[in-house]
Amino acid sequence: MSSALLVIDMQQGFDDLYWGKRNNPQCETNVAALIAAYRKKGQAVIHVQHMSVEPQSPLRPNQPGNDFKPEALPIAGEKVFSKTVNSAFIGTDLEKYLHANGIDELVICGLTTDHCVSTSTRMAGNLGFKTYLVSDATATFNRKGIDGREWSADEIHQSALASLNDEFAEVLSTEAILKLF
Amino acid sequence: MSSALLVIDMQQGFDDLYWGKRNNPQCETNVAALIAAYRKKGQAVIHVQHMSVEPQSPLRPNQPGNDFKPEALPIAGEKVFSKTVNSAFIGTDLEKYLHANGIDELVICGLTTDHCVSTSTRMAGNLGFKTYLVSDATATFNRKGIDGREWSADEIHQSALASLNDEFAEVLSTEAILKLF
Repeated sequence: MSSALLVIDMQQGFDDLYWGKRNNPQCETNVAALIAAYRKKGQAVIHVQHMSVEPQSPLRPNQPGNDFKPEALPIAGEKVFSKTVNSAFIGTDLEKYLHANGIDELVICGLTTDHCVSTSTRMAGNLGFKTYLVSDATATFNRKGIDGREWSADEIHQSALASLNDEFAEVLSTEAILKLF
Repeated sequence: MSSALLVIDMQQGFDDLYWGKRNNPQCETNVAALIAAYRKKGQAVIHVQHMSVEPQSPLRPNQPGNDFKPEALPIAGEKVFSKTVNSAFIGTDLEKYLHANGIDELVICGLTTDHCVSTSTRMAGNLGFKTYLVSDATATFNRKGIDGREWSADEIHQSALASLNDEFAEVLSTEAILKLF
């Protein structure tokens, strides 16, 4: 059995002002470091690409925002799963692929902490994979509460990690993951 | 096609001090009002029961904490799905049951906002159900951040709802849902 790095929605469209104010500008550098470490060890790097069906989304297919960021470009032999919803496990063959390839551990990174990354992390843990989420290799945007409160991107990020840690995944920094690896 | 009320983990074990400090003491009253409204209209009330496999959990089977709270007791003819993970859709026949019974809309309530309710709401939306989450018929507990920050139950509740609203579900109050219904 082995570990795979699951890189979620590291796409150029997330640089668009459409999404609001982002936290953690180091996310891209940390994702690149994780990808490099997995490639060096010969372990699987799996990319997930969001093919948005929202008319206004910068992530919809056939425009530059759908493309991967330069820090997270797949190379030959790396699997890419396309999805249209938040979870990398819904409408894709990801779960089947992981079982078929003897992968029982996932290290998850990418965008955004509380939407696609949280949903995929929750399902990974609930489906029985040993799951790690890399706290500084994910990021999100400010959001408005249903009571009108303005939540900063960092508050949304940190509260999302607080809800995920020790329940769905072990949340660790890039440095801690690279030491374990 | 029709609507169902999905009542998640309304079990006595959540009254245990094990979980920390809870918010929204009105949750039980609001869940009871939603159940009464669905029963009156003859629409489905579906109960989800957590059968914990954690040795220390007050929700594990064969002890009083596993039982439903008095405000959310199933009655004859109402379906109960047992689960062992957070998502009501993983390891259960819930999705199949909803399709078989022509249910395309879910109104979700229960415990806890950021764990089982959030995970089930995310999957409901991603699986294509029209999904409502009832903001004041769910509640959660205080949690510690990975940076050591102490988050109150209400902060975790409100930030979780901010991340879910308009992405996975429409988040509305009990009063608003009962007006729509």
